Amino acid sequence: MTLTALRERDPDHWLKACAIRTLTLDAVAGANSGHSGMPMGMADVATVLFEKHMKFDASAPEWADRDRFILSAGHGSMLVYALLYLTGSPDMPIEQIKAFRQWGARTAGHPEFGHARGIETTTGPLGQGISNAVGFALAEEMLRARFGKKIVDHYTWCIAGDGCLMEGVSHEAIGLAGRQELSKLIVLWDNNNITIDGKVDIADRTDQIARFRAAGWSVHECDGHNPADIDDAISAAKKTSKPSLVACKTHIAIGSAAQDTSKGHGALTDPKVVADTKAAYGVDWPAYHVPPEIKTLWEEIGARGAAERAAWEKRLASLSGAKQKEFTRVMAGEAPAKLSAAIKALKRQLVETQPKIATRKASENTLEVINAIMPEHVGGSADLTGSNNTKTGDQGVHLPGNRDGRYLHYGIREHGMAAAMNGMMLHGGIRPYGGTFLCFADYARGAMRLSALMKQPVTYVMSHDSIGLGEDGPTHQPVEHLAMLRATPNTLVIRPADATETAEAWEIAVQSRTAPTVLALSRQNLPALRTEFKAKNLVEQGAYVLADATGKREALLMATGSEVSIAMAARDLLQAEGIGTRVVSMPCWELFEEQPESYRRRVLPAGPVRVAVEAAIRFGWDRWLFGERGKREKSGFVGMHDFGASAPAETLYAEFGITAEAVAAKAKALLGRE
Amino acid sequence: MTLTALRERDPDHWLKACAIRTLTLDAVAGANSGHSGMPMGMADVATVLFEKHMKFDASAPEWADRDRFILSAGHGSMLVYALLYLTGSPDMPIEQIKAFRQWGARTAGHPEFGHARGIETTTGPLGQGISNAVGFALAEEMLRARFGKKIVDHYTWCIAGDGCLMEGVSHEAIGLAGRQELSKLIVLWDNNNITIDGKVDIADRTDQIARFRAAGWSVHECDGHNPADIDDAISAAKKTSKPSLVACKTHIAIGSAAQDTSKGHGALTDPKVVADTKAAYGVDWPAYHVPPEIKTLWEEIGARGAAERAAWEKRLASLSGAKQKEFTRVMAGEAPAKLSAAIKALKRQLVETQPKIATRKASENTLEVINAIMPEHVGGSADLTGSNNTKTGDQGVHLPGNRDGRYLHYGIREHGMAAAMNGMMLHGGIRPYGGTFLCFADYARGAMRLSALMKQPVTYVMSHDSIGLGEDGPTHQPVEHLAMLRATPNTLVIRPADATETAEAWEIAVQSRTAPTVLALSRQNLPALRTEFKAKNLVEQGAYVLADATGKREALLMATGSEVSIAMAARDLLQAEGIGTRVVSMPCWELFEEQPESYRRRVLPAGPVRVAVEAAIRFGWDRWLFGERGKREKSGFVGMHDFGASAPAETLYAEFGITAEAVAAKAKALLGRE
Repeated sequence: MTLTALRERDPDHWLKACAIRTLTLDAVAGANSGHSGMPMGMADVATVLFEKHMKFDASAPEWADRDRFILSAGHGSMLVYALLYLTGSPDMPIEQIKAFRQWGARTAGHPEFGHARGIETTTGPLGQGISNAVGFALAEEMLRARFGKKIVDHYTWCIAGDGCLMEGVSHEAIGLAGRQELSKLIVLWDNNNITIDGKVDIADRTDQIARFRAAGWSVHECDGHNPADIDDAISAAKKTSKPSLVACKTHIAIGSAAQDTSKGHGALTDPKVVADTKAAYGVDWPAYHVPPEIKTLWEEIGARGAAERAAWEKRLASLSGAKQKEFTRVMAGEAPAKLSAAIKALKRQLVETQPKIATRKASENTLEVINAIMPEHVGGSADLTGSNNTKTGDQGVHLPGNRDGRYLHYGIREHGMAAAMNGMMLHGGIRPYGGTFLCFADYARGAMRLSALMKQPVTYVMSHDSIGLGEDGPTHQPVEHLAMLRATPNTLVIRPADATETAEAWEIAVQSRTAPTVLALSRQNLPALRTEFKAKNLVEQGAYVLADATGKREALLMATGSEVSIAMAARDLLQAEGIGTRVVSMPCWELFEEQPESYRRRVLPAGPVRVAVEAAIRFGWDRWLFGERGKREKSGFVGMHDFGASAPAETLYAEFGITAEAVAAKAKALLGRE
Repeated sequence: MTLTALRERDPDHWLKACAIRTLTLDAVAGANSGHSGMPMGMADVATVLFEKHMKFDASAPEWADRDRFILSAGHGSMLVYALLYLTGSPDMPIEQIKAFRQWGARTAGHPEFGHARGIETTTGPLGQGISNAVGFALAEEMLRARFGKKIVDHYTWCIAGDGCLMEGVSHEAIGLAGRQELSKLIVLWDNNNITIDGKVDIADRTDQIARFRAAGWSVHECDGHNPADIDDAISAAKKTSKPSLVACKTHIAIGSAAQDTSKGHGALTDPKVVADTKAAYGVDWPAYHVPPEIKTLWEEIGARGAAERAAWEKRLASLSGAKQKEFTRVMAGEAPAKLSAAIKALKRQLVETQPKIATRKASENTLEVINAIMPEHVGGSADLTGSNNTKTGDQGVHLPGNRDGRYLHYGIREHGMAAAMNGMMLHGGIRPYGGTFLCFADYARGAMRLSALMKQPVTYVMSHDSIGLGEDGPTHQPVEHLAMLRATPNTLVIRPADATETAEAWEIAVQSRTAPTVLALSRQNLPALRTEFKAKNLVEQGAYVLADATGKREALLMATGSEVSIAMAARDLLQAEGIGTRVVSMPCWELFEEQPESYRRRVLPAGPVRVAVEAAIRFGWDRWLFGERGKREKSGFVGMHDFGASAPAETLYAEFGITAEAVAAKAKALLGRE
């Protein structure tokens, strides 16, 4: 069909869609970078979606029961920005479109969560958006079960491209969505047959329709440039009891010289190409200009949901005070008031019982306390429930027949789990945590980095955090993972040393508002080290003096997690020889870094020799050994220097020389007392 | 069917398969850990495969044209160990089975490449083996095209479980295999319907058969306990022109009390369970004992391929001397003799032309030289060919119709690409390199770690290595990735500063025998810094003095990659003020670490103030700032402190304060000369 025929078939629709296209052309040309083709190709689909199906009110972008719109193909960011501007979103004036991809603008190269309301998640790394969308849809199901259909009842829409569908994480996401029968999740596939390297066919011939059906999805097809056809397909998708794929056949960079080519995927910046394309559309709008009558049509779309929102607010107001308050609390992500007292009570009990348990078990015990008072706390594991100790007795398994269930069997899908947790957290109303082995942070990295970048306080429960896991061997033994996670900005990495520190770590995790937490937990049992009850959360300081020197302070041992007890035993050896030794537990470097210098100096005074002990590689430890008034020639490290091995844990600790004896010997050598 | 009926149907087969099962039971019970259920469930399939289909000669486990056998479900490692022992592999005496999962044994918890010949790859992290297998099959196609069917003509067999198939990387792998029509790749799916958390159904209802068909595979089904049925399905799979899935319906932990349960997935260690299970099999073999007549049957299987191998060796010997030599060279992974001279010639030319180009472009120029003399060098990119500059003119695209092609369009599959590269390298005869953006090392982490652990010298070409990529914003801008990769044992991370360093970096990468190399390359143009020709490869030293102080040496600037030119400009500013300044280029920390202390001292002398400059976070730099006789109070860092942002690159460098002026100011402040 020619552009003329498309235009004549439905002139109003055509001009609305062209407003998206010309804003995209103008913004990309203005920035001299970006991706023109995708918003141009999907403009018709987006127009029909926003005009006929999306439940939203542009004036209230935070309306809790709005439909969520996720652009998984994040490089087409101008599609979102144009839609927000056109519908009259308060955060997206035309100046922002003009500042596309410039310093300080809300209109970043890829959509960044937090830059403007209406951007529901950060996308760009392919496959993340579609996987977040599964989390959004799960959160909607859970909240609907909890608060009722009158308060929570909305769709999650997602536009995904071929790149998203080729990424492995999409497989994990669609399998999970299919099993969970997330019927209010609808993915619109921009089936344009083009990737950066050329036609999709050079790398892939997957029958996506059969693939999605195999995963339990309902599939609908349409001509992505025919508004009636698009409308029909979306309408059909809304009626099924499964998640839906709407396969939209489109032309990338439609109407331009680069249509249907990989060149059209990128930036069309040549003024002549921009002018010719506008001419082909039959419009002569100047740069960044949308005629008032077209803008008005769009603003009517933006205002379409106002009455529905008002009705919803009445329904919310008609809830009981307690239920209203609870809905508001969980949507705001606030921890319940009684959490702090409950953790204190647990800590008091732990000091009394002094349990010798693995920190993964201590984590489970803490979760029993938290989950009992925090109904928004939704757990799960990537098929390691019994190993990660992530499930508590009261949770119930979340499945289509049991939407009250608060535990998710994510399957062997670490990356999909992490991305779904981001989606749940972003949706609001749910605070997710999920488990795997620390080593498999590798598989989830793509999504874990986005938790940090988006400031989403999800909790990663990562057990089996060192060679202490024993026989499973080097593929399962993290050695560089603590460094990898500590190096990641805005990520709290907490490695607790015993049950009390584990309780404190969880308190920090569920109260975090702007950072994800990684809990690195032991497989092996660890002695209780905190023998005295302290109301104060000591882990919150990042590091603290667990045991001070008796007599002159000559040695300072720093350790985390399972190695703190080794440091304590080393202290016994050294003290027995009259060497005054302080042990500093350092469960969280990031929190210690945030302490005032005066506190850091008190904990790590100049003077004593320093030995750091961690069953991981040294990378990063020099910050604490040489820095903070430490001296290179007076410091040492006891830990791993390479990958691990397969053997019982005690053998590994002995063979790799991570023992109290080795620590004591290192300290003595530094003191010249061998 | 009852066990008795199974036994009676084919007693010889039954006893051979039972030998795998009882060795598994004994070894797991002996180690008191491990996974019994999978080898028990797949014993019949493995027996038929080795008896009727696998081309191998147990006495010559390195025969180049052997079929490759990959256990993707690596937790079932006893299956491989039992097969190697039973068939008489020289590396697997019974003592090794008895030492299962113990320190120093070849029989690690998961199969570790290098521990025993016959273990073709390291598995355990799920999904890796099936993805490696795609690389093995690709290598076979390429080598067959190059050396002919008489020299290279074998299958790649892979046993995968539900976990492998749920992992995202499997989606990438099967899509790639489908498009490439790898007809000699046959995956045997252990369809036992059980995962650690319970039945597969709690997390997944994917129709795997439809899914594989959608990806272009041929699918065959069998009863995984019926030898004739298994044989038929495998025979059918061998005949198709597509990669094949053989779906084997099996019972996990067959014959034990834990059969068909998730308990059966783990370790069956109770002596009574072991005894009862053996009784159910109708055997009373003592621990680790296989009756001689059964062992003999297995050894006959092990010797089955001897004649075929002898014939193959004759065929190899009948090749022309040059071709024979070339086949031997590439299978041994040796770089061609003329490589070094070619790199030197390129370096000479670069010193003359002093090109101001991005290091990704310099990488392409170097590849033009290398690929012309190294036919085993196979490139590719995860759909960023034009951005990673990975394709050279002479390569040709590898596709079913063009098996001579040496360039792979991997599609948007970073993880699948990395795992396939591991497979190609492990196969031998191919030296692969592949590209993506440095930030998307996150997606490939799972396989990149295995390159390092397996000591496989694949090359990762990672361009767009900092905020210098500009407008694409923080999702695309690595800040912690250099730290993540440097923290990984046995990984060479090289960040060259100009075209000459890039040429040297490539020389190191293609000559590496035991470590993968990550090349971190700039998107932006960089000035030529090496103005004098040196035959010696300076990057090989890890760090070196690029420009020394004129006059008294007061400041020392350390930098990598794109920031070396900033350090050089800062040196100009400082020298203009009479402050003698040395600039050290540090392209590869790992190689510098390996230098003798005397060299490190010469490069980083005590005395001058030190400033490190890198457009990444500081994590890890303290090693060089405080260590090596540096002083904390006399050192500083200019770089990133958080995630990046979307804006033109120059704006980002200015806004984040990574400029020559900022470096000079930092040095002056440390010298007390503000």
